[in-house]
Amino acid sequence: MNVLIVCAHQDARSFNGALLALAERELAAAGHAVEVSDLYAMNFEPRCTAADFADAGSGSLFKYDELQERAHANGGFAPDVAAEIDKLVRADLLILQFPLYWFAMPAILKGWVDRVFVNGLVYGGGKWYDRGGLKGRRAMLTITTGCYPPMCAPDGINGGMDLLLWPIQNGILRFAGMAVLPPFIAYAVARSGQAAREADLARYAERLRTLERTEPIFFHPRDDFGADWRLKPGIAPRTVGQRR
Amino acid sequence: MNVLIVCAHQDARSFNGALLALAERELAAAGHAVEVSDLYAMNFEPRCTAADFADAGSGSLFKYDELQERAHANGGFAPDVAAEIDKLVRADLLILQFPLYWFAMPAILKGWVDRVFVNGLVYGGGKWYDRGGLKGRRAMLTITTGCYPPMCAPDGINGGMDLLLWPIQNGILRFAGMAVLPPFIAYAVARSGQAAREADLARYAERLRTLERTEPIFFHPRDDFGADWRLKPGIAPRTVGQRR
Repeated sequence: MNVLIVCAHQDARSFNGALLALAERELAAAGHAVEVSDLYAMNFEPRCTAADFADAGSGSLFKYDELQERAHANGGFAPDVAAEIDKLVRADLLILQFPLYWFAMPAILKGWVDRVFVNGLVYGGGKWYDRGGLKGRRAMLTITTGCYPPMCAPDGINGGMDLLLWPIQNGILRFAGMAVLPPFIAYAVARSGQAAREADLARYAERLRTLERTEPIFFHPRDDFGADWRLKPGIAPRTVGQRR
Repeated sequence: MNVLIVCAHQDARSFNGALLALAERELAAAGHAVEVSDLYAMNFEPRCTAADFADAGSGSLFKYDELQERAHANGGFAPDVAAEIDKLVRADLLILQFPLYWFAMPAILKGWVDRVFVNGLVYGGGKWYDRGGLKGRRAMLTITTGCYPPMCAPDGINGGMDLLLWPIQNGILRFAGMAVLPPFIAYAVARSGQAAREADLARYAERLRTLERTEPIFFHPRDDFGADWRLKPGIAPRTVGQRR
């Protein structure tokens, strides 16, 4: 398997750095080819601007998604975007690894998605959800948090973790067509203590060793929705996202 | 009222540009003082790095939240961060205006939150949710989408809009202590046509004229949660976020 890990932490000596080093080691030992986009080390650009394109149509109204579609058709992406698209296309498994910032991805990683999950390749023209452009590939989130597990219980003060991650897991990864493996989450790593962090690392190693037999999260297939994009009558909602 | 509008669109001639111009006009006409952070025009930096601080503790492990706390205590923020913090502190109402990118904020705006909603001022040391550092202030999202309303119905293919916005409305704005007004959403603006867009602008003007008598969204107060941060027995869940 080709694995692409996109990581958003500023310091390789952090717990995120330890998770990344562990993943590179375990995946290589299992015979996988690993690529890493270490976003802060790359000083990766998160802003979506005209600089992303060889030709942004000077003077015309700036429509980012249309510019992406055109650049995909004619190979007109800036080198830094093109390089990440190439990595994405090579990957059988995409791991997004990050500390949860405000219950979402840090901006530098959100910018990687905004700029690299391009219209024309990843979505658009009928390509979305189980017909998405990255169909046949898998994805997984590896997350560290500042909060404790009960805060992210279904009745917790932050809301349930499956609900907090819905916009990413459904709205990005599943929207792109990927099968989404359950997230790996290490809670409250700044305060949990050395023993808990070591247990987290062991738990992550086990997840990495068992990737091939891990069941993806269930999402309703496109055919469960009617022409109005809502669950068809008689289809019982099975996700946190689609309720009645 | 002092109003701060933080806007994330690349082109002032866009529909987002029209929404922004309308808001500036309507709010000024109603006697409010308006400040705007036009993030792309400012080329606002979204990345969280050592450059955000006068002193990032060279050589020590990079912990962004701790550096924010220290910089808040000693006034050690970089000028671009300090300027935005000053605007935020002056604001009675914060409007975050953006096109929905991947069911979330564009990276440039997420970076504004990551860098400006700083530990020590906005949260930390017991300051969170209805005890958050921005308590007494109000906030509102102004959003344009590529998708159509039924896609974001509770049983829609994207999941319900209240659920999609939960990480922002609860996890950022409410977490910071703000009262959150219902979002203004203009759907599918690239395809809805001129008449629909004009109706959207009229609807937005009406929202802006009636801000003072608009009821905030309900969130469970901190006291509805027990020492385990979960809803106390007997408290019925009333939000999309907290379920049983």
